Amino acid sequence: MADYSFASDNTAGACPEAIEAIVAHNAGFTSGYGTDHVTAKAADLVRGMLDADADVRFVASGTAANAVSCAALCRPFEAVVAHEHAHICTDETGAPGLFGHGLGLVPLKGASGKIDPAALDAALSQPDVSYRQSPAALSLTNATEYGTVYSVEEIRALTSRAKAKGLPVHLDGARLANAVAHGFDIRALKALDIDILIIGGTKAGASLSEAIVLFDKGLSRRFDARLKQAGQLPSKGRFLSAPWIGMIESGAWMARAQHANAMAQKLAGLMPYPIRHAVQANALFVDMEDGPLEALRAKGFFVYRFTDGTVRFMCSWATTEESVERLGAALKAVG
Amino acid sequence: MADYSFASDNTAGACPEAIEAIVAHNAGFTSGYGTDHVTAKAADLVRGMLDADADVRFVASGTAANAVSCAALCRPFEAVVAHEHAHICTDETGAPGLFGHGLGLVPLKGASGKIDPAALDAALSQPDVSYRQSPAALSLTNATEYGTVYSVEEIRALTSRAKAKGLPVHLDGARLANAVAHGFDIRALKALDIDILIIGGTKAGASLSEAIVLFDKGLSRRFDARLKQAGQLPSKGRFLSAPWIGMIESGAWMARAQHANAMAQKLAGLMPYPIRHAVQANALFVDMEDGPLEALRAKGFFVYRFTDGTVRFMCSWATTEESVERLGAALKAVG
Amino acid sequence: MADYSFASDNTAGACPEAIEAIVAHNAGFTSGYGTDHVTAKAADLVRGMLDADADVRFVASGTAANAVSCAALCRPFEAVVAHEHAHICTDETGAPGLFGHGLGLVPLKGASGKIDPAALDAALSQPDVSYRQSPAALSLTNATEYGTVYSVEEIRALTSRAKAKGLPVHLDGARLANAVAHGFDIRALKALDIDILIIGGTKAGASLSEAIVLFDKGLSRRFDARLKQAGQLPSKGRFLSAPWIGMIESGAWMARAQHANAMAQKLAGLMPYPIRHAVQANALFVDMEDGPLEALRAKGFFVYRFTDGTVRFMCSWATTEESVERLGAALKAVG
Amino acid sequence: MADYSFASDNTAGACPEAIEAIVAHNAGFTSGYGTDHVTAKAADLVRGMLDADADVRFVASGTAANAVSCAALCRPFEAVVAHEHAHICTDETGAPGLFGHGLGLVPLKGASGKIDPAALDAALSQPDVSYRQSPAALSLTNATEYGTVYSVEEIRALTSRAKAKGLPVHLDGARLANAVAHGFDIRALKALDIDILIIGGTKAGASLSEAIVLFDKGLSRRFDARLKQAGQLPSKGRFLSAPWIGMIESGAWMARAQHANAMAQKLAGLMPYPIRHAVQANALFVDMEDGPLEALRAKGFFVYRFTDGTVRFMCSWATTEESVERLGAALKAVG
Repeated sequence: MADYSFASDNTAGACPEAIEAIVAHNAGFTSGYGTDHVTAKAADLVRGMLDADADVRFVASGTAANAVSCAALCRPFEAVVAHEHAHICTDETGAPGLFGHGLGLVPLKGASGKIDPAALDAALSQPDVSYRQSPAALSLTNATEYGTVYSVEEIRALTSRAKAKGLPVHLDGARLANAVAHGFDIRALKALDIDILIIGGTKAGASLSEAIVLFDKGLSRRFDARLKQAGQLPSKGRFLSAPWIGMIESGAWMARAQHANAMAQKLAGLMPYPIRHAVQANALFVDMEDGPLEALRAKGFFVYRFTDGTVRFMCSWATTEESVERLGAALKAVG
Repeated sequence: MADYSFASDNTAGACPEAIEAIVAHNAGFTSGYGTDHVTAKAADLVRGMLDADADVRFVASGTAANAVSCAALCRPFEAVVAHEHAHICTDETGAPGLFGHGLGLVPLKGASGKIDPAALDAALSQPDVSYRQSPAALSLTNATEYGTVYSVEEIRALTSRAKAKGLPVHLDGARLANAVAHGFDIRALKALDIDILIIGGTKAGASLSEAIVLFDKGLSRRFDARLKQAGQLPSKGRFLSAPWIGMIESGAWMARAQHANAMAQKLAGLMPYPIRHAVQANALFVDMEDGPLEALRAKGFFVYRFTDGTVRFMCSWATTEESVERLGAALKAVG
Repeated sequence: MADYSFASDNTAGACPEAIEAIVAHNAGFTSGYGTDHVTAKAADLVRGMLDADADVRFVASGTAANAVSCAALCRPFEAVVAHEHAHICTDETGAPGLFGHGLGLVPLKGASGKIDPAALDAALSQPDVSYRQSPAALSLTNATEYGTVYSVEEIRALTSRAKAKGLPVHLDGARLANAVAHGFDIRALKALDIDILIIGGTKAGASLSEAIVLFDKGLSRRFDARLKQAGQLPSKGRFLSAPWIGMIESGAWMARAQHANAMAQKLAGLMPYPIRHAVQANALFVDMEDGPLEALRAKGFFVYRFTDGTVRFMCSWATTEESVERLGAALKAVG
Repeated sequence: MADYSFASDNTAGACPEAIEAIVAHNAGFTSGYGTDHVTAKAADLVRGMLDADADVRFVASGTAANAVSCAALCRPFEAVVAHEHAHICTDETGAPGLFGHGLGLVPLKGASGKIDPAALDAALSQPDVSYRQSPAALSLTNATEYGTVYSVEEIRALTSRAKAKGLPVHLDGARLANAVAHGFDIRALKALDIDILIIGGTKAGASLSEAIVLFDKGLSRRFDARLKQAGQLPSKGRFLSAPWIGMIESGAWMARAQHANAMAQKLAGLMPYPIRHAVQANALFVDMEDGPLEALRAKGFFVYRFTDGTVRFMCSWATTEESVERLGAALKAVG
C-alpha cells in the first residue's frame, strides 16, 4: 500500500465524505434494487446539482455505465461515433460490443481528446449502406482522456451536428467533476441535448459508483430491467448511492475535484518535460524518453505511457502537495 | 428506513465486520482492477476457507456472477440445466441469455428447490439434435431458493451425473454461508467436481460483493478481460474485497449466517401457519391466505408470495430476536 | 432418395414453377444484395397478393426470418409471447435469444396450437418488474404447428389484446399458404395489426426462401443493414426472390398448398388411428403406440412423434395420391 | 437486366453446371437440414478437391460463414486479427461482432491486401491486459480483396506465427477458386494449419452457397446446432449443396475461375489507367480520376471506388471477351 500514486485517479481510496455516508446509511433495513430511500435521496441530489429533471440510476462500473448507455441508444447493426482515444474505444475491452450485441464504434480524430467537428461532419455525411454500421449515436467525454475540458460551446457544436442528423448523445463524465472544477457549468448540460450522461463518482472520490442520468426519459421504460439483466442492479443499492449523498451534500464532489486539478497545476509548474496537452483537469501528459521514465519508476513513481505515446501523470482527491513536490524533485533528478 | 424486514435477506445493511474492513482498507493508494493487495489477501482468505487452490475474483452483483459463469461454461447454442425455481431461471431477467448470447435454460423439477436426480437423468439423456439447445452445464444452488440445504452426497449425486456426460458444474452459493451454518462442509466443495462456485457476500452481510471461485483454473485465462468487458472489474477493487477480509478473519461470515438460521428456527417455533419446506437455512415458506397476508402487511410486515405460492419470510444477520417475536405476535393476531 | 415422405413438408424439392423461375431469372447481370429487379418484382407480387403496401425482403431461412423479426420488435431484457409449441419456442435452437441478445420467450398454453386468449390476458397483465423479462411482442403462427388454422376473428382477438398493451405482433406464416388454402383471407392480414409477417416459401414449394413483410414501415430503416449483419442478405438475391415470381404469377403458391391440404384430407379418410387435432392444413397428428409406429417405419414410412406425443404426418405439394394410398394401406396393415 | 457488369463478381447469375445440378437434384424426397444424400455427396466432393479429411457444411451467405467461424474460434472478450481491408473488417456490417457477441477486430496493415508479417508480429506481441481484446484468431483472405494471391509460403509465414502463439486460423476463400486458378495449390491447404476454411461458391458460379470446411474436427461438435441457431441450416439443404456437385464434378469450379482470371488479364492488357495491384485473380484496381469514372459510368459501365481509393473492375465466370473489349474501348474513350 503506497502513500502516493500518479498512475491513475482510481488508485486512491474513497474520500472521507463518501465513506462516512456509507457508514451513516448502513443502519436499518431498506427495500432492494435501487428502490430504497437512500437511492431516492441521492438521485434528488444529482438532479439538484444538474438543476434538471431526469431519471438517475447508480451502477458499480463506469465501463458498464457507458456500454449499457450505448446499447440503449443504438441497435447492433449501427455504430457509436466517438473520439478515437475515448475510453469506450481503447480501454473497455469492447464492452459496447458485448452489451450492444455487436454494436460498432467509429473512431474520430481530434486534438487533445476533443472530436474535430470536421471529422464528425465527415462521419455523419457517409451514406447509409447495408454493409456498414452507420452512426447512430455520438459519445463525448468531458473532461477528455487528455485532461482537457470541452467548453459548453464546443459541446454544443458537436451535439447540434449529431441532433441535426437524428443521433442521440451520450456523455461520458467519468471526470465530469474535474471539468466542472475547471469552469464547465454543470447546469448547462440540461440544455445541451444530451440523452444519457454518466457522472463519475469513483474518480471523484466515491468508493465505486457512477450515476447514469437519463435526460431523455423515453429511455427510462424498463431501464431497471435493462440494468438487472446487465448485472448492474445490485440488491443493496444504498452502497452505490450513499457516497453521492455524502459528496454532494458536503460539496466534496466539487471541492475534491478542485483539489485534484490544483495538484495537476502544481505538478505542471514543477514539470521539467514538455507538456503535450493543456492542463485543465487533473492530468498531465508529457514527452519523456524511456530512460528517465524507467529511472522515475525506479524511484517508486509508477506511471504509464498513454495511447498517444506521452507519459501520463494523474492527480486525485487524495494527492498531497507533498507528494507532488516529491514527484517534482524526482522528475528533476531523472531529467 | 425500517428497523426490521422479513422480505429478503438483502434488506439489511452490511454487518459491522464488513463495514469496518472497508474503512480500514480505504487508506492509501493501491493498483486498480483487482490487482491490489487487499483483493489478493481476500482471495487468500477465501481459498483458506475452502481449503482449496482456486482462482478467486470479486464482483458487485450475484446476477452478473452467475451469468458470467454460465457464459464461461457454455456456448450460445447450448443450455444450462437448473432447477426450475433457481434464481437464474426466475429472478435474473434472462441475464444468462444476455451474457451467454442466447444461451438457453433447461428447467428441472424437484422438491423444495433440489433437483430431482431422475429429472436430471432425463434431461441428460436427450439426444443432441440441431434444433434444440442441448445441456452443456449443470447449475446448482445451495442453500436452495426454498431454504433447504443439499448434503454433500446429494450434490455429488447430481455433479457425478453431469460429469459422466461431460458437463461442467456451476454452484450458486448466494446463501452458501447459510448452508454451511446448517452443517454443509465447505471444505467438501473442492472434491465435488464444481468448476465455478459463487460465494455470496451480500446476503451473508457484506455491502455488495460476491466471490467467483474458479476451481477449474483452465477458465482463468483472460478471465479479467471477460469481467472487464462485462462491466464487473471496477477500478477500486478493494471495495469489493475488503468486506471479505473483515468477515472471514473475524469468523463473521459463518457466525452471522448461524444467527440468521437461528432466527429462522425461532420464527418456525412461533409460526401458526403450515410450513411447506424444511427450515434448514434462513427462510420459511408458509401456506397463508390472502386475507391474513394483507393483514400482516398492514401491521408493517411486508413479505412476498414466492414462486410456488407460499409466503416467504427471510431472516438475515440483522434480524433481531425481538423483531422475530413481534412478527410471531403479529402472525398470531392475523391468523 | 425416396419417392415419398410424410416426415415433413420440407422433404420435397421445389415445385416446377419455382425451379423454372430460378432458371428463367438466372440470365444476365443484376445488382446485388436484394437491389435487383428480380427481387423488386417479387416484392411487388407479394404486395399484390396481400393487397397491401409493405416493405418486403427475402431470406434463406425461416429460423432467421423469425429471429430477426423478434429482435426487431423487442429489446434483450424483454420477451416474446408465443404458443408453447410455436416453432420459435421448440425448434429453432434458441435463435430468438441469439439474434435478440438474450431476448426471452413466454410460452402460452392453448388447444391445438392456438394461443388461449385467457392465457394471453394473464401474461399481459403481469406487472413490469425488474427481475423478469416482460412481454414486448406477440408471436402467432398460422397455420399452427398442429395443422389448425386461426380464423381472422381468432387472430384479431389476440392481436387486439396485444395492441391494447402496446405490443407489436409477429406472424410466423411458414405455412401461411396452407392456411389460405383452408380459407383464411390473405388480404385480411393488412387490417390485423400485424407488424411483421413471415410468408413461407420453402414449405409452399420454393427452394429456400421466406418473405419478410414489414407492414410497419417504421421498422424498415436500416433493415438491410440488419439483414446483412445477420448473414441474411446474400449477394445474389435473385435466387431467393425468383421462386416467388414463379409461384405467385402461376398461382402455384396457392394451388400447391391446396393440393397439400387435400392430400391431408385424403389421408384423414384412410387413417385408422384417432386424429388429435382438426385437419385444416397439411398435417395430421394421431395417437399411435410405439409398436405400430415402429412397424410403419419398417415399411419405409418414417414419421416422428411430435411435441405433444402424437405421431405427425405431413403432406406437401409433392405428395401424390398414390403415396397417400400406400401409406393408408400400410397404416391399416400395422394397426 | 444488363448483359455485362464489372461492378462485382456477384452480379452474374449461376453458371450452367450449377443450375443444372440444382434441377437434377430437385427430384424426389430427402431428409432435411443438411442430412440429405445430396449434401453428403457434395461434402465428399469438397473433401476430394482438398485431398483432406474435414467436416463440411454449406451455408447461404459468406458473411454468415465468416462470422460464424470467427465466433467458433474466439470468445467475446477477444479479437480476430485480419487485414485492415479484409471483408470481415470493411463489408460485413460488423457481423463478427453480432455472431461473436462483441468479438473485436484488430486490423493490420499490408501491401495489396496481404498482411505484413511484421504487423502480425507486432499485434501478437502485445501483452494480455484486461482492458483490451487480445488476439485469439488469425483471419486470412485468399485471393485477397485486391485480387492478389498469397503463395503457400506466404500463408505459412502467417499461420506459423499464429500457431506459435496458440491462435487458430480462419481462411476466407470467397475467391479461393480464383487463387487456385492463379496457381495456388488447393491440396496444400490441409498442411497449412488452417482450422476453418470458407470456400466461395457464389462468386465461383454457384447460386448462393459457401462451404464451411472444418479442418479442426474438434469444432464439429454441435456445429449443426450452431448453424441452426444462426439461421444457417435451411431445411432444404440440397439447394445449397447441389451446385457444388455440378461445379466440382464438371471441373467448372476451376475452369470458370480460370476464365474469370483470363478476362481480368485481358482487361489489364487494354487498361489505359495505372494498375495499382498485381492482377493475379479476377480483379483490377486502377487509379482513375472522378471525371473519367463518371464518363465511364455514363457509358453504362458502373464500377466503384474501393477502400483504397482505386477504381475496381471485377470479372466473373460470366464476363465475355466481347464485353471486356467494349469496356476497353470505353475506357480508351473516356481517358
